[in-house]
Amino acid sequence: MIYVAIMGHGVVGSGVAEVLRKNADSIARKAGEGIAIRKILDLREFPDLPYADCFTKDFEEIVNDPDIRIVVETMGGLSPSYEYVKRCLETGKSVVTSNKELVAAKGDELLALARKNNLNFLFEASVGGGIPILRPIDQCLAANEVTEIAGILNGTTNFMLTRMIEDGMSFEDALALAQQLGYAERDPSADVGGHDACRKICILASLAFGKHVYPAQVHTEGITAITSEDVRTAAAADSVIKLIGRAVMQEDGRLYATVAPTVIAKSSLLSDVNDVFNGIMVRGDAIGDVVFYGRGAGKLPTASAVVADVIDEVKHLKARKYLFWEGGYEGYVIPHGEGTVQMLVRAADTADAAAQIAAAFGEVQAVSGDGVPAGDVAFITPAMTESALDAALAASGLTVKSRLRVAQL
Amino acid sequence: MIYVAIMGHGVVGSGVAEVLRKNADSIARKAGEGIAIRKILDLREFPDLPYADCFTKDFEEIVNDPDIRIVVETMGGLSPSYEYVKRCLETGKSVVTSNKELVAAKGDELLALARKNNLNFLFEASVGGGIPILRPIDQCLAANEVTEIAGILNGTTNFMLTRMIEDGMSFEDALALAQQLGYAERDPSADVGGHDACRKICILASLAFGKHVYPAQVHTEGITAITSEDVRTAAAADSVIKLIGRAVMQEDGRLYATVAPTVIAKSSLLSDVNDVFNGIMVRGDAIGDVVFYGRGAGKLPTASAVVADVIDEVKHLKARKYLFWEGGYEGYVIPHGEGTVQMLVRAADTADAAAQIAAAFGEVQAVSGDGVPAGDVAFITPAMTESALDAALAASGLTVKSRLRVAQL
Repeated sequence: MIYVAIMGHGVVGSGVAEVLRKNADSIARKAGEGIAIRKILDLREFPDLPYADCFTKDFEEIVNDPDIRIVVETMGGLSPSYEYVKRCLETGKSVVTSNKELVAAKGDELLALARKNNLNFLFEASVGGGIPILRPIDQCLAANEVTEIAGILNGTTNFMLTRMIEDGMSFEDALALAQQLGYAERDPSADVGGHDACRKICILASLAFGKHVYPAQVHTEGITAITSEDVRTAAAADSVIKLIGRAVMQEDGRLYATVAPTVIAKSSLLSDVNDVFNGIMVRGDAIGDVVFYGRGAGKLPTASAVVADVIDEVKHLKARKYLFWEGGYEGYVIPHGEGTVQMLVRAADTADAAAQIAAAFGEVQAVSGDGVPAGDVAFITPAMTESALDAALAASGLTVKSRLRVAQL
Repeated sequence: MIYVAIMGHGVVGSGVAEVLRKNADSIARKAGEGIAIRKILDLREFPDLPYADCFTKDFEEIVNDPDIRIVVETMGGLSPSYEYVKRCLETGKSVVTSNKELVAAKGDELLALARKNNLNFLFEASVGGGIPILRPIDQCLAANEVTEIAGILNGTTNFMLTRMIEDGMSFEDALALAQQLGYAERDPSADVGGHDACRKICILASLAFGKHVYPAQVHTEGITAITSEDVRTAAAADSVIKLIGRAVMQEDGRLYATVAPTVIAKSSLLSDVNDVFNGIMVRGDAIGDVVFYGRGAGKLPTASAVVADVIDEVKHLKARKYLFWEGGYEGYVIPHGEGTVQMLVRAADTADAAAQIAAAFGEVQAVSGDGVPAGDVAFITPAMTESALDAALAASGLTVKSRLRVAQL
């Protein structure tokens, strides 16, 4: 019997306890040994649960219990998660976490610590909830050079954009509905500001390209500025707006990484990833495009991913798993402005507009049709650096109403 | 340095050699050791290749070379692949294969042999080409009880159906185009007859549910009978026709497994899997639906999946990997006719048709609109066993023109 501890009995942590107990027999068969919960760390009390006697408020009871071989961290946040996970790894316990904030900030350091102590540190649930994505990138694509990863990584904003696209809702109404349905927090800023998606693209890019990408290195825009007019203009270009986290390896070995609302063609498979679903595209030199799709959040999908990691650690108690990346450094990620982009621009349709567009950009791809609001003109720029594009727009004399990056995904 | 042999220098085998050589450095980094090709078995000669001196026509040179630790089988077919793979496993060599016919027919036996000799037998490339699917099912979904697997598993037929749906082509024209583009063989029967998809659903179901499913146990229909009228009738039901391989675990522990052209709603993500792409949906109790999407065939995607397996075996030369299932048995798979189905039926619209439909099926879901051919009537039956449905149709007096199963995927 292998004993585990769970730190944090919230939505995911209680789901882990539920899956471990409900599927105990099949899990034991798959792991080769039974798995039992020894301790659960939470400041709250749950006297009515069948496993009420596992609860403790004292982390020392976990870290000092030599029988506990694996610790599941589902508290979230950076502190005290970081200190606790570090101490677990220092005292010979393998760790599984679903905490994307922790992995995005401290993944390189914790992976190095796990390697030094011949332990495992796994976090499949930190990206894409229950969608298997980190393992496939790491293992099955081992023979590929990955060139790009792009995905819809946040279910809340994808739900809101879907309502804006399909039902013509405003941003405010879509947010209110998402909150009413429990998809968005009362303070929705981590979701709508793009920070949640940013953490996830950091983890994906760190793994795929082997060097840590820190959240502060990734230019991040949320969806708060997206209007119904933008949605309709994108539709006129036979496209939809999705919040896309994206990392593209450049020929010079630097990474282009962004989170931003992005115009993608309706023919792209990611354009069909709707509601709270996530979709992640991996582009490799040999494999071409592979897309992973499923529920990116939710108690049981996320818990099942955590439990799969626990099973994997039980099977590898004496051997380290593959997962690893190095520390990152300044200059590895292209500074904002230097990346090459195309933008869908909407501006006031003045008498001078056509001439101003031609003067600023030369030939552009005009976007017209019912979707473009009356009195506006819309076009897609040629590819150029974002700084050059911003400068050209500023100098053009156009009254710019919105600019959204366009990607071929 | 780890030495490997490749048996069969056809499309996939030559791709494996190419990927192993081209990405040698990054592969060595990922595997932890260099990987070198020692021998290639082929009856043909390739004097101009840089690795021409690796070729041999004699299998004994491979099986008797103690330095060869891993053998890649990319010959295809059952014989002599089966005998060769068996002898490799008997003499202490791990095996990687892309041969779906071999795994679908003999997977249980070869897995048992590998386990007995503490070796690995991996075959990620046998299903979905380069799409990572077997490992995710086995590992990442370890904490789930999988309830259903369904997928578009054959790129050739999916290309043909896409042309029939999007361009209104006939079956014959779509086949001619597929042959012209090199997607279909001159003898296309393995593809259009559904046998290729059958082998793949056998492998997927064997892995997901732990018992071997043999091709002869799976009711298999191809797409040869699909007409433009069927395609348009499905469109009238806001659906498309896809060749779907499907395995559903019943509450009584038996498996319902079929390959057949199937009507699926346009709202299903699988309905957007077009052209030569494959898409595979895994439905689990905790995870919900997860979809894997990508190129299901092609030299480099398939070769990259084979090489990823080779890397994995290099990393596990001393330890067995997880992959395993037991032998199957008669009675495990529901006999044809006993499975519960719904059908989209098209029949001649005679004066009696409405009354005959009502008498045979009670309330049905009528399908109408431009797509239904003039003079025909179309409807979706209630759910019932296939035998009962066939009997009801036969006794109804209707002049049935086509019947296609309907699935909620």
